[in-house]
This record gives sequence, structure tokens and C-alpha cells, in this order.
Amino acid sequence: MTSHRNGGPPLALTQGDPAGIGLEIAVRAWLDRKERRLPPFLLVADPAAVRRAAALFDAADAVAECQPEDAGVLFESRLPVMPTGHAGAAPFGVPDPATAPGTIGSIDLAVRLVQAGRARGVVTNPIAKAVLYDAGFAHPGHTEYLAALAAHLWGIPEPLPVMLLWSQDLAVVPVTIHVPLRRVPSLLTTDLIVRTGQVVAADYASRFARPSARIAVAGLNPHAGEGGALGAEDDAVVRPAVDRLREMGIDARGPLPADTMFHARARTGYDVALCMYHDQALIPIKTLAFDDGVNCTLGLPFVRTSPDHGTAFDIAGKRLARPDSLVAALHLADRLCAGGVAS
Amino acid sequence: MTSHRNGGPPLALTQGDPAGIGLEIAVRAWLDRKERRLPPFLLVADPAAVRRAAALFDAADAVAECQPEDAGVLFESRLPVMPTGHAGAAPFGVPDPATAPGTIGSIDLAVRLVQAGRARGVVTNPIAKAVLYDAGFAHPGHTEYLAALAAHLWGIPEPLPVMLLWSQDLAVVPVTIHVPLRRVPSLLTTDLIVRTGQVVAADYASRFARPSARIAVAGLNPHAGEGGALGAEDDAVVRPAVDRLREMGIDARGPLPADTMFHARARTGYDVALCMYHDQALIPIKTLAFDDGVNCTLGLPFVRTSPDHGTAFDIAGKRLARPDSLVAALHLADRLCAGGVAS
Repeated sequence: MTSHRNGGPPLALTQGDPAGIGLEIAVRAWLDRKERRLPPFLLVADPAAVRRAAALFDAADAVAECQPEDAGVLFESRLPVMPTGHAGAAPFGVPDPATAPGTIGSIDLAVRLVQAGRARGVVTNPIAKAVLYDAGFAHPGHTEYLAALAAHLWGIPEPLPVMLLWSQDLAVVPVTIHVPLRRVPSLLTTDLIVRTGQVVAADYASRFARPSARIAVAGLNPHAGEGGALGAEDDAVVRPAVDRLREMGIDARGPLPADTMFHARARTGYDVALCMYHDQALIPIKTLAFDDGVNCTLGLPFVRTSPDHGTAFDIAGKRLARPDSLVAALHLADRLCAGGVAS
Repeated sequence: MTSHRNGGPPLALTQGDPAGIGLEIAVRAWLDRKERRLPPFLLVADPAAVRRAAALFDAADAVAECQPEDAGVLFESRLPVMPTGHAGAAPFGVPDPATAPGTIGSIDLAVRLVQAGRARGVVTNPIAKAVLYDAGFAHPGHTEYLAALAAHLWGIPEPLPVMLLWSQDLAVVPVTIHVPLRRVPSLLTTDLIVRTGQVVAADYASRFARPSARIAVAGLNPHAGEGGALGAEDDAVVRPAVDRLREMGIDARGPLPADTMFHARARTGYDVALCMYHDQALIPIKTLAFDDGVNCTLGLPFVRTSPDHGTAFDIAGKRLARPDSLVAALHLADRLCAGGVAS
């Protein structure tokens, strides 16, 4: 038991889409809090929606509305919930745009709690972008909304949010993310790779207690272009980025052939792999750590992690969803809030 | 011991680039023939080059020149070698275009032995394309040369050779292979995916004893295009190919999000994954089976496997190269020659 378990600020856990599995896995995680040695969290959500999820496990009575200052002590015996002020109880599996204000309000309130020092960091449950778009949400996604909130609340230029997929075995960062593969070569610039690498290096120093993180940079093309025979971008775009990062004192190397970067011996040579596109990053980590990968956003002025899966509307409310990735997200957030030192 | 060990036709193993690790790992594999329960093979090579590799292990005296008909019996006590008629002993690590005729001649002779019924199948050691190009080799690579040889020797239309990367844990087929990533979306056609799937289904039936192989087809874009939001090709190109394969009675499904196809539970749902490009196929198999993956060419009128690595000039002659992948290639060729039944 570390001190924060006895009354320090909790982690703020958002409700996510209430028709998805988020609240259900939050309840399951809380029920397992002792075995899994969970850090205290405060669920920022509609209490009625939480009670309905808790009722799946005959635990509706455990839900306790509270302020963040009470969550740490309460957490031992009750599931602490801070109301968003929005009703948000859609039936499981049936997403409803009427719940969007509560879903967004939960994110907003969680970040404000961190900014005010009332919560340590933010762990976000999955949202469904289409549901939020239908309700008029104007941001491309969860992460971009957090970057905009950060700029607004902290009064800083909008940061470049960087997606880190983290597991015990492997950590990867996709430089381009949710774009068609066809567009990747033109979106990939030396400047984007450099800025991403800088954010990774800075956050590994400040949050992971790794002042000189070893960054392995993947090539874009097969065999990292094989000297140009299999594509020009590795020499023309990726290599100059590696060179610039090294000139900044960052321990980057590459471009490396992506196919031989991720086996067990290769992984001992770096702390994080910078990948050029979505599947190049997500295939290896989901192959190795499907259940307990964590999504972590670097580059923000606060800690943010989330489970590495979606709303899973198809299994919501059926007691089938596994809390493993949420538990891993809570543990990683706890560790990052402590500056990288496991508590 | 099965009958072929006592005199049936051997596997024909080519020499590969004599400056690389091919002959060295062939000798190491032969030295371990009992522990590793190797099927008999005949090395098709310059005997002087083989002796030099064997001398690394004080085994030069074990090399025995012979005809294929004697290899099965000889293999127990000697390393059987059939001369190519070309000298081919470049120094280790120093590739020499002068050795190209012997390297090519070894491939040519090995295939002719199979065509004549004097060898069961072909296992090829790695070659260096640049060395062969310098000597006037006019084929894009090893596999294309084998397809051309097959057409010539068997008197058939030139087949579509299909690259299968096989391991105990996972088998993958890249539909496009050694091309820049930028070109993948335009090279990928419904017809190419269908023809590749047909070859896979036919060879799994005839060689792997899998008459109804389950083929999982990966999407091209992140999340298999997410209904078009992340790219049009999955719905426009990949899905019609899956539909056509299913109409032919082939058990194909997809397009599937590539990142969630390769973890342990997902892999139980299919026999082989059809991937849209090089790294999508090679990242997962090399992550899971770096040392003992096998490259197998489907679509040819004969069995061809090879180790899943290159010439490794940098470590050739240093007794550092591991024979694991070559051993796996020999075992898989043995099994495929027996129609998929392990012997």
C-alpha cells in the first residue's frame, strides 16, 4: 500500500459510451481491486448507468457518489462515482446519440479534475466516434479532443498528441494512424517523424523514468527500402529524421526492416519502436499482447491511458468483456503519475 | 525411419551463394542429422566449396560425391554432394559474380533431378540477387526463376508462384511482395487475390493434406477500412475477391482487420492468412517464429522450400549461423513430398 491509496488524489476514469462495455469492465476491475492491486480510481459517470452495470454482478449497492477527495478512502469498500450531471443510461449494445453529452462531459470533467489537482491522471473508457458525430462532436477523435482541452485548460499551444501502445513485452508508436494505407507515403514527412520522436523521448524521460530511451525507427517499405530498390522514402524521408533526432541527442536508430524488429531478441535492443503506419505498429503488439495492451497518449500535459479495445457493443451487458486491458491501463497510469516508478 | 531414408530419392538442396552461410548451415544440419531426425538430402554444389564449409567443423572428409540414387544410404555416414560442374568457392563473406553460373546451375540441376524423379523436392539455400544480376541473370528473383524452369521442363504455362511463410504457429501468404508500399494499393487487384487464394487452396489440398483449408484474408487498410472511412480498397477490391473464392467453394473469409488476426486465439480460426503486402505478412510470422520459419513456394509442379533468411555475408564462415530455419525447411519439404503426412 502506498500513500495515495489512503486518500491522495485518485485516477479519474471516464464512463465511455454507456452502451458499450466500459462501465461493465470498470465494475469488474473494481470487484477485483484487491487481487489485482488496483490504484484507487474515481469513475466520472452517470451514477444510474454505473448502478445498472454493477447490477450485472449484483453489486449495485456498492456504488457511492462522492467527491474526488473522498475516493481514495472509499475505494476500499465502495465504487466511487462522481456524477457528470448528464443522464447516460442507454440500453447495453444500443448506442444512442442522446448519451453523447454525458460521454463528452465525463471526459471534460475528468481532465478538469486533473488540471485542478483533484485527480492524478485520466484513464478513458472507449467511445464510439460515430455516436458522438451524430450529436455534433466536432473533433476527429478522443485523442484530438484531449489535445484541444489541454490547450484550452492549460493555456498552451495545442500539443501534438502521440499514440503509444504499451505492453510488458513491446511498446510501439504509429507516426501516422487512422488513415488509408494509400495516403501514408504522402502524409509521412521528416518533420512529423522528428516531432513524434521528440515527444516520445521527452515523455519517456519525464513519465517513464527513461532519460535516454532507445528508439528503433521502422522503415516504411519492405526491407526498409533495400537501398532504394523497394521504395525511396526510407532514404529520403525516414533516414533524415533519424539523423535529426540523433543530432538532438536522442538515441534513435533506423530505418530498420520492420519484419525483423519485433522478435524476442530484437526487442531487447530498444525501449520503443516508432512505426510508420497503423498496422505496422499494431500487428506486432496485438500479436504479442492482445489482452493487456494499453493505449497511452504522450505529449499531453497530463497522464492519459486507455484500454486498447473499442466499445464492443456486441458483447456489452453480457458479462463477457474482460477487464484485463483496463486493469493494465490503470496500472500504467498509476506508474506514469509516479514519474515511471512502479508504486 | 521411413523407407525413403534407406534409398528412396533424396531432397535436393541447392548450394546458394557460396560466399554466404548456405553451405555452412547445410554442413551443420548434416552433422546434427540424427538428433534432428533429418530426411536425407543431396547437396547440389561444387564439392570443393562444400569441403571448405565442412572444414569449419573438421568434417571435410565426410563430403562424398555421388549420384542421387546413392544419397539415401550414404546420408547416414557421409554428406552426399552431386557436383554442378562449376567451380564455386568464393571466400566467405565476399560475393563474387564468377560464382553465379554455379549458383544458377545448382538450382537448375536440382529442379531437373526432381523432374526426372531422381529427387523428391527442392530446398534452396539463399542467393544474392545483386550478384546474379551482375552475371547477367535475367529473372527478378529465385522464385520467378523456378516458375520459368517449371514451365520449360514440365511444358506447362508459366505458373503463378505464391510465397508461403510457414511455421508451427502461423502460416502467411503475402499477395504483393517485394514492391514499394506506395505501389501496393494499385498493384492489388481482385483477380490477383483470387488467383493467389486458388493456388493456396489447391496446394493446401494436394500437399498439406488440407482439402478445405480455412483462409483468413486481411484487409489492406487499418480496421479493414472501417466501412470506407479508412480506405476504399477493402470493400472495392478485397471483399469481392473473398466472395469469388467462396463461390468457388473455398473457405475464405474477410477482409479482417489485420491487427487483431494474429494473436493466439485468433490463429486457431484459420490455417493460413492471406495478407495484402510484405510487412503485413512478415511482421507477425517473424515476431512469432524468427528462427524456424520456412519459405515455401506454392503453385509449382514440385515441392520447394527454403530457409527464411538471406545469405548473411556478414557472419559467413564464422560458425555463427544457425541451421534452424534450414532444418525446418528440410522437414517441411519432407512432409509436403509425402502429401502433407509427417514421415
